[in-house]
Amino acid sequence: MTTDLYLDDLAPGQVYGSGEVTVTAEAIKRFADAFDPQPFHLDEARAATSFFGGLAASGWHTAALTMRLLVEGAFRPAGGIIGAGMDELRWPRPLRPGDTIRLESEVLEVRPSRSRPAQGLAKVRTTTLNQHGEAVQVLVANLVVVRRPAGA
Amino acid sequence: MTTDLYLDDLAPGQVYGSGEVTVTAEAIKRFADAFDPQPFHLDEARAATSFFGGLAASGWHTAALTMRLLVEGAFRPAGGIIGAGMDELRWPRPLRPGDTIRLESEVLEVRPSRSRPAQGLAKVRTTTLNQHGEAVQVLVANLVVVRRPAGA
Repeated sequence: MTTDLYLDDLAPGQVYGSGEVTVTAEAIKRFADAFDPQPFHLDEARAATSFFGGLAASGWHTAALTMRLLVEGAFRPAGGIIGAGMDELRWPRPLRPGDTIRLESEVLEVRPSRSRPAQGLAKVRTTTLNQHGEAVQVLVANLVVVRRPAGA
Repeated sequence: MTTDLYLDDLAPGQVYGSGEVTVTAEAIKRFADAFDPQPFHLDEARAATSFFGGLAASGWHTAALTMRLLVEGAFRPAGGIIGAGMDELRWPRPLRPGDTIRLESEVLEVRPSRSRPAQGLAKVRTTTLNQHGEAVQVLVANLVVVRRPAGA
């Protein structure tokens, strides 16, 4: 069972996991066709001679798949997952067709808001790992998280 | 006519524009259903009582639409738009149904690589503006850009 988390439940060092998803060449091309129509995301032959040396998912596809796993994963703030801004977003290696990814989300900081007592910020690093345990994305996000209401 | 850009063509202060795109409620929900299935991105009624006070696009949808405009815009590095990492990514206000967005991309820094003489990094700030000229996304990306080949 998953319980909604309030800011008061979060503490640095907590680690949350996720389910996993396998990305297909078809899904990589479909996303690229809609949002990032560059040859190395669309066409195996042209990708082979590109920077990536083979078909690779758009980084924004990796980010979108990460969000999906996050929303469905163990880290469930009561008010939803709302990013105020990112401190870091990078793609250390490409996401390839056939890769299976999962998340590790670690709480880095928890900061109640002075001006808005009903909420605060949590800084969370979410690492997206492929089936070899290698990072394909590192995201450090500042999330708006509500505080536990009095009596809850 | 758009000419492919090499690192050697870039200089701080240059500003590049883009075309525009209008986002519909249907597109917001379709993206959310695939990648960010949270009530405030999926359902007008539940969005009305949420943090966003109405239907809002997933930030990752805003990012993906921005990438599409970037790929089709005036800023066209010869090797493609390849992000090594982001220094900043934030969503100052929500992207709403009916909003029309366009980009302003400003070159902030240009840095040839010491270890790889054929390429370098360009730091580019891309601001995604709605029809009122308000920023819905600010992205500062470090892009891998190839240098002009000898004789080209």
